[in-house]
Amino acid sequence: MTKTNPGRFFEDYAVGQRIEHAVPRTIGAGERALYHALYPARHALYSSDEFARACGLQAAPLDDLIAFHTVFGKTVPDVSLNALANLGYAEGRWLAPVWPGDTLRSISDVIGIKQNSNGKSGVVWVRTRGINQHGAEVLEYVRWVMVRKRDPGAPAPGAVIPDLAPAVSADRLIIPQGLDFSDYDFALAGEPHRWGDYAVGEAIDHVDGTTIEEAEHMLATRLWQNTAKVHFDAGAREGGRLIYGGHVISMARTLSFNGLANAQMIVGLNGGAHANPCHAGDTVRAWSEVLDRAETGAPGVGALRLRLVATKGGEAGRLKDGDGRYLPEVLLDLDYWALVPM
Amino acid sequence: MTKTNPGRFFEDYAVGQRIEHAVPRTIGAGERALYHALYPARHALYSSDEFARACGLQAAPLDDLIAFHTVFGKTVPDVSLNALANLGYAEGRWLAPVWPGDTLRSISDVIGIKQNSNGKSGVVWVRTRGINQHGAEVLEYVRWVMVRKRDPGAPAPGAVIPDLAPAVSADRLIIPQGLDFSDYDFALAGEPHRWGDYAVGEAIDHVDGTTIEEAEHMLATRLWQNTAKVHFDAGAREGGRLIYGGHVISMARTLSFNGLANAQMIVGLNGGAHANPCHAGDTVRAWSEVLDRAETGAPGVGALRLRLVATKGGEAGRLKDGDGRYLPEVLLDLDYWALVPM
Amino acid sequence: MTKTNPGRFFEDYAVGQRIEHAVPRTIGAGERALYHALYPARHALYSSDEFARACGLQAAPLDDLIAFHTVFGKTVPDVSLNALANLGYAEGRWLAPVWPGDTLRSISDVIGIKQNSNGKSGVVWVRTRGINQHGAEVLEYVRWVMVRKRDPGAPAPGAVIPDLAPAVSADRLIIPQGLDFSDYDFALAGEPHRWGDYAVGEAIDHVDGTTIEEAEHMLATRLWQNTAKVHFDAGAREGGRLIYGGHVISMARTLSFNGLANAQMIVGLNGGAHANPCHAGDTVRAWSEVLDRAETGAPGVGALRLRLVATKGGEAGRLKDGDGRYLPEVLLDLDYWALVPM
Repeated sequence: MTKTNPGRFFEDYAVGQRIEHAVPRTIGAGERALYHALYPARHALYSSDEFARACGLQAAPLDDLIAFHTVFGKTVPDVSLNALANLGYAEGRWLAPVWPGDTLRSISDVIGIKQNSNGKSGVVWVRTRGINQHGAEVLEYVRWVMVRKRDPGAPAPGAVIPDLAPAVSADRLIIPQGLDFSDYDFALAGEPHRWGDYAVGEAIDHVDGTTIEEAEHMLATRLWQNTAKVHFDAGAREGGRLIYGGHVISMARTLSFNGLANAQMIVGLNGGAHANPCHAGDTVRAWSEVLDRAETGAPGVGALRLRLVATKGGEAGRLKDGDGRYLPEVLLDLDYWALVPM
Repeated sequence: MTKTNPGRFFEDYAVGQRIEHAVPRTIGAGERALYHALYPARHALYSSDEFARACGLQAAPLDDLIAFHTVFGKTVPDVSLNALANLGYAEGRWLAPVWPGDTLRSISDVIGIKQNSNGKSGVVWVRTRGINQHGAEVLEYVRWVMVRKRDPGAPAPGAVIPDLAPAVSADRLIIPQGLDFSDYDFALAGEPHRWGDYAVGEAIDHVDGTTIEEAEHMLATRLWQNTAKVHFDAGAREGGRLIYGGHVISMARTLSFNGLANAQMIVGLNGGAHANPCHAGDTVRAWSEVLDRAETGAPGVGALRLRLVATKGGEAGRLKDGDGRYLPEVLLDLDYWALVPM
Repeated sequence: MTKTNPGRFFEDYAVGQRIEHAVPRTIGAGERALYHALYPARHALYSSDEFARACGLQAAPLDDLIAFHTVFGKTVPDVSLNALANLGYAEGRWLAPVWPGDTLRSISDVIGIKQNSNGKSGVVWVRTRGINQHGAEVLEYVRWVMVRKRDPGAPAPGAVIPDLAPAVSADRLIIPQGLDFSDYDFALAGEPHRWGDYAVGEAIDHVDGTTIEEAEHMLATRLWQNTAKVHFDAGAREGGRLIYGGHVISMARTLSFNGLANAQMIVGLNGGAHANPCHAGDTVRAWSEVLDRAETGAPGVGALRLRLVATKGGEAGRLKDGDGRYLPEVLLDLDYWALVPM
């Protein structure tokens, strides 16, 4: 019997299945320092314990995307080792801050399955939850991937396509306990723009760019214990190492500080597409579009729904061609909710 | 209205102006680990809590240059985003150790301004202070930069050129409270040379060299939240990414361990010039010259004034040509005070 | 007098000599985060405080090889600065876990010496011990290196060749106090295979590969304060920077998670050879062979003796040619004991 993990194939999934992912991980100040070295992360709430306390929190939580990548990374050996494509995200919510010293594990429930017409692969939907050492959920999201079949001749299972919300409705967003932006210090945060200054439809060019290096994306991807070989083995795939899509998400989110410095915390993930592959040598840029605005019950705290687009060139604001296909320079199209001072 | 930061131009500065820089930053053991991975940092006082306690401190402080880079990094969006050149440093003093868990912010006062004769740019002098969460100053220094004018036709402001000390006088150096080198362990520190073994005029070739990689200097520069695009975007500047001058300072300082292992703490910055640009692929070497010696009031603690020169080749000890210009292989000429056991 | 360290030459060693190495080092969560970014480290006992507590420990110790590299790194300036080759390891034992916040230093005793027949170099054997801030030994191992003579004409010392055990006998392995695998959670650990599932002679192909980058191996090597210039200076050696053998050890050990996820802790080092040099651009793979099995006194804890082979290609299971020489693609042949749930 082979002792290595061959990964799951399409036939290995069934709706209702629960997967408890290995390996739990204690994360803290070391992971934060690396995150801030790998990305131009500057959102004040995640940068300064003092700033976070002035906003009603006990200290600076770990960056929202550290939680996402850690929870996501654990699912890779069970969900995407034989994945042909990461197709989408939906219904993502950050449910509680992650503090330095917390230990996270991940659990996924298979909620949908549909064989492709070519008979060689299928789509699997999982709802993944990240759980801390107290048993509290810190994050949940749905993700669907295209997975290879082990045996193309195996019969197709009955299709179950989950009914997913097109976006998380604002009243379902969870505001971290105690968060209070009433005395928000805009000077220390880096920009004067408040919730009311952002208009639906407004586009923001984040201006800066970062040229990606092999060493950096591998450090980042390993940090989240994501071990998909296409990210590490130069010979695993035509065209060289494929950069983990989450590396592009974090690069774009942190580049968006320049124009969205006050979009402090991501609390909802409405959807997302990795439009084109990213490779070392690409220079990643980002632009955002304001999609929606909502009030929240927390003092001084508003929510903005934002489209975050990462590109490897091209003009800010341009996303798709006349046929509705992503332009070749678009890397990421992410739809999320962030908390912003009012 | 654009929401991104265009940076300040020469016209935006006036003597007497105070700039409170964003974003405060909590730094700790994670940042130290990265510093020790990015540079061959081995000075015992910053490497070992036990060694630091034996020298009268409560624990190992964060490396002197971590404090410098953190404070400096915050000033970049306000001071050097449109800078054409970083011209010099003066009157730098480390005022208190920075401990893991401290939160630093930066404030700059504009103390000088002078338009260049070409009418297209000018020089701005700022005195920057780093302040911890208790409101205590941990570092101060003067820096001057050449900044582009927004409008070459704008009238020249009256010139104010600050009167800066050619060097910090030894009696103005601040010795960390409790520091005591009476029982200094030379074997554990790595070298037997004490204060009295260094003669004014003596030159030390630090022998070792490090070939610089893009991934490393970008990790380092982001770690200090320094976001000047020339360091990250390969297309921003002819000749590729320009390496942050502070990366060269830290590389040279840590290479100088070999010969100056007992120059434990930097406490004064008398001056400095980034003589030539550094790029990935350069192999950085360093040599030092002893410029001065002074006693301090603290038990067993002497001070050495040192010139630290980083090069990308060439012979140790060679600095300028016959016309007084830096040789093309010289990257850095830094003049600082360090504390050394007597 | 030159102030830089020229390193020791063969003539500088004598049996019975004790070397107290500089510089003590406090290590913690920052170093762990870096280790987990540099390598695909996923062994649950080192990844999760919760998992470690469920196994009877107070928290997750620092990874076994962090202890090894830290202790080893300190010996480099005294033992291997003028070494021509790192010849072997023996009698290595991990004696106590290293916890975040511990401060390690290293002491070596010269236990053997033998001049080579060419008269230009000789072999030196040292027994190195790593010691924490409480004076407790955390690690010991014997290492032998070939060292250049300063003066080829110097007389040969009397040869002393230490009598080294071919392997650490299982009854001499130290099991960390409190370790208990009775309630081991195989699902969280990532694989179902227990001690009894591994047969002596069994070979395991760990499947995954990582293409090595210059930036990564330099970060790793500096992290352990290993300053041998061949690892950093691209011009120091024909063929470019030589990768620290320990980088290959850690890469292979962490790649071996896939098939040996439950080989949680390394507790013995029986031997090892760096068969061929490794350079950036090489894609490192690993395979293991089960050499022996032993029970231990601790509840649910067994020991496996494993051969870990790192390659830069070639077929798993192939090690030497017909003449008993390592195949050119073999990088490492390491023989160690690990603790595994029964």
